[in-house]
Amino acid sequence: MRAAIFRHGDFVVDTIADPKPAAGQVLVKTLCCGICGTDLHAAKFTEQFIERSRRAGGRWPMDPSRDVVFGHEFCCEIVEHGTGTEKRLKPGTLVCSMPMTIADATVQGIGYSNDIAGGFAQYMPLAERMLLPVPNGLPADKAALTEPIAVGWHAVQKARLAPDDVPLVIGCGPVGLSVIAALKVRDVHPIIAADFSPGRRALAQQMGADIVIDPGATSPYQSWKDVATPAGYDGSRYAQLFGSGPKQRPAVMFECVGVPGVIQQIIDGAPADARIVVVGVCMESDRFEPFFGIIKQLNIQFVLAYSGEEFAQSLHHIAEGKVDVTPLITGHVGLEGVKGAFAELANPEKHAKIVVQPWE
Amino acid sequence: MRAAIFRHGDFVVDTIADPKPAAGQVLVKTLCCGICGTDLHAAKFTEQFIERSRRAGGRWPMDPSRDVVFGHEFCCEIVEHGTGTEKRLKPGTLVCSMPMTIADATVQGIGYSNDIAGGFAQYMPLAERMLLPVPNGLPADKAALTEPIAVGWHAVQKARLAPDDVPLVIGCGPVGLSVIAALKVRDVHPIIAADFSPGRRALAQQMGADIVIDPGATSPYQSWKDVATPAGYDGSRYAQLFGSGPKQRPAVMFECVGVPGVIQQIIDGAPADARIVVVGVCMESDRFEPFFGIIKQLNIQFVLAYSGEEFAQSLHHIAEGKVDVTPLITGHVGLEGVKGAFAELANPEKHAKIVVQPWE
Repeated sequence: MRAAIFRHGDFVVDTIADPKPAAGQVLVKTLCCGICGTDLHAAKFTEQFIERSRRAGGRWPMDPSRDVVFGHEFCCEIVEHGTGTEKRLKPGTLVCSMPMTIADATVQGIGYSNDIAGGFAQYMPLAERMLLPVPNGLPADKAALTEPIAVGWHAVQKARLAPDDVPLVIGCGPVGLSVIAALKVRDVHPIIAADFSPGRRALAQQMGADIVIDPGATSPYQSWKDVATPAGYDGSRYAQLFGSGPKQRPAVMFECVGVPGVIQQIIDGAPADARIVVVGVCMESDRFEPFFGIIKQLNIQFVLAYSGEEFAQSLHHIAEGKVDVTPLITGHVGLEGVKGAFAELANPEKHAKIVVQPWE
Repeated sequence: MRAAIFRHGDFVVDTIADPKPAAGQVLVKTLCCGICGTDLHAAKFTEQFIERSRRAGGRWPMDPSRDVVFGHEFCCEIVEHGTGTEKRLKPGTLVCSMPMTIADATVQGIGYSNDIAGGFAQYMPLAERMLLPVPNGLPADKAALTEPIAVGWHAVQKARLAPDDVPLVIGCGPVGLSVIAALKVRDVHPIIAADFSPGRRALAQQMGADIVIDPGATSPYQSWKDVATPAGYDGSRYAQLFGSGPKQRPAVMFECVGVPGVIQQIIDGAPADARIVVVGVCMESDRFEPFFGIIKQLNIQFVLAYSGEEFAQSLHHIAEGKVDVTPLITGHVGLEGVKGAFAELANPEKHAKIVVQPWE
C-alpha cells in the first residue's frame, strides 16, 4: 500500500507492506485522516516527543530511526474481516475507531507506532470491537473529525460544569474550537473565546462562541469579568463574608494553547475559585507561581483524550448536526500533499484542520 | 499593653497603646496564640511576603518600616463590650475568632497588620459577630489551635473525598498534621504520611496516620501503590479498557511542604487520575511539567484558610475530643520568649506548635 512515511525527519511517499488482520481484527481502507497538532509536534520536536513519552510510561514507543506513519483521526471503510470476528458490520461500511487496535489482548496505539501504520496510509488493521459505524450518511471527512471533537467533549465533561458557569476558552486552534463546540452542545452561555488570529476568531464564532476576544486588544480576563459580574456586585471582603447581594458567576477556563507561560497567565487572570481545564498539550517544562493558585483557591484539571463512550457520543453529535465540523475542515490533500500540509498548518489564518485522503 | 513587636526585622518586647473597641467590637485579653509557619516566613522573607501579598490583591498590606504584631491563632477572654454590641457573651468568657475584625462594615485581617496588633500582644479588638465561645471547658492553649486545625479541615473538605480513597500526606509539619487530624475525623483509611524527620513522623502517628514513611528510605508513592493496589490488579491498557477485575483505589495526595519542586515530585509520583491538594504555601516561583499532569489527567486543587463554618466545626472537633491537639503543642512561651521561639521552630525534631501566652 502507499503511505506518507515520516522517515529520518522528513515525509516521503512510498510503498509499504499491506497490513494483515490478526484474530479479532478487520482490514479497513482509510478514507480520511486529519492532521493533529500533536503530529506537528512529533514531526518537529521528535526527540523531545519521544523522551516525554518514554518518561510518561512509554505510551507511544516510537523509534525515530525506523519508519513511522502518523495519523490517528480517521474514518475508514471495512474491506475484510480477520479470523475470530463477529462480522456484525458488512464490508463497505464506513466506520470510526479510537486510535488503537488489539492483538492477543494487547492494546496497540495507532498514530505514533513503528509497527502499525496510521491513517496517512491506505489500510489499517482495526479491532472489530472498537468499530463504530458512521450514522446518517455522514461523509468520511466529517466523520474523521470524531477524534478531535471527542477531545473537546472530554475536556468539557471533566470540567464539572455548574449551571451558571461562564466559560472562557484561551486559544482557538483545533483544540479550542473543539471545546467551544462541546460547550455549545452543553448549552453553557455565553461562551467567551480568545485568540490572536482573526481567522481563528472567525472560526470560533462559527463553532459557537458568543463573544470572541483579540487578546492583543482586550484582556480576555477583563471580558470574562464584565460578563460574569452582575450589576450591584460587591466584591469587598465584608460582602463576601456576610453579604446577600448578587454573586459573581463561576469561572471555568480552558487552556487550549499548550505553550509555556499560558497556565500561569490564566492563574494570574482567573478570579477566585476558578476551575482551569488544561487541554493544550505543553511538552516543555513550565514555570508557575503556586502562591497565586493558593490565594485564589484555583483548581487545575489536566485532561487527555476521551473515554470510549465520549468518542461514540462525539461521532453522534457530528452525525446529528449538534456539532457542525464544516468550518473546521479547511483543506483536503492526498498522500503527496502531506508534507506541504504539515508546513501550511503553521499558518493559523489559513488552516484549522487538513484532512488527508490516502486514496485520492 | 505589652507586645512582642516585629520591628525593623527583629522581635522586641515593648509597650504599645491598648486597642479601643469600635462599634460592634469587643475588647479581649489574648490568653494564647500559636506561632504559624506563615509567621516564620513573614519574619524571614519579609520583602517577598509583602510583594506576593501585594500582587495577590493586598490582603495583607503590611509596611515593614512600621511596627507589626503578628499572631493569628488565638484564644481570648472577653474583657469589655464596645458600643453597638449585643453582649450575648459575658466578660470572662473564653472565645475564638477567625483572624479578622470588623469596623464600619470593613473587614480587617489580624496577624500582619500595622494598625491592629495580633495575638502576640495582650489585647485585641475583635468583632462580636465573629466570636465563638469555647465549649466544654477546653483550655485556652488547645482552643488556640482551632485556626491551624481548620486549615487541614478545609483542605480535606476541598478534596472531594471518595469513599474508597487512599490519602497520602506529604510533609508532617503543622499543616500536614492538621490534614492528618481531619482525615481521621472523616474516617478515611489508611492514612499514609511521609516526612524526613523522625520527630514529625512520631507526631503524625499520634495525630492519626496509619502508615508513616521516611522518604529517605522508602518512596511514599510506592508505599501508596502497595496499599492501594488490590491483589490480582491488572494495570494493562487492555484490562483498563475492557477488564472487570479489581480496581486500584483512588488517590488523594496532600502537598503540605510548600517549597519549590514538591508539586512536580507529586505529579511524578502520583497515579493516573489522582487529586492533589496543595495546602503548603509556596511563596516562590516553581517549575512543573504540564505534560505529566496531562498524561495522568491529574487534578490540582489549591486551598487556603477555611470558611466560618469550617472554623467553628474545628473548634468543636477539638472540644469534643475528635481531634486531640495535645501532641501538637510542644512549647509555651511568654512575650519575651517569642524571638527565641521563632528560632527554635526551625528544628522539626523539637517543635510542632509553640503557643505564646502574652500574660505569662
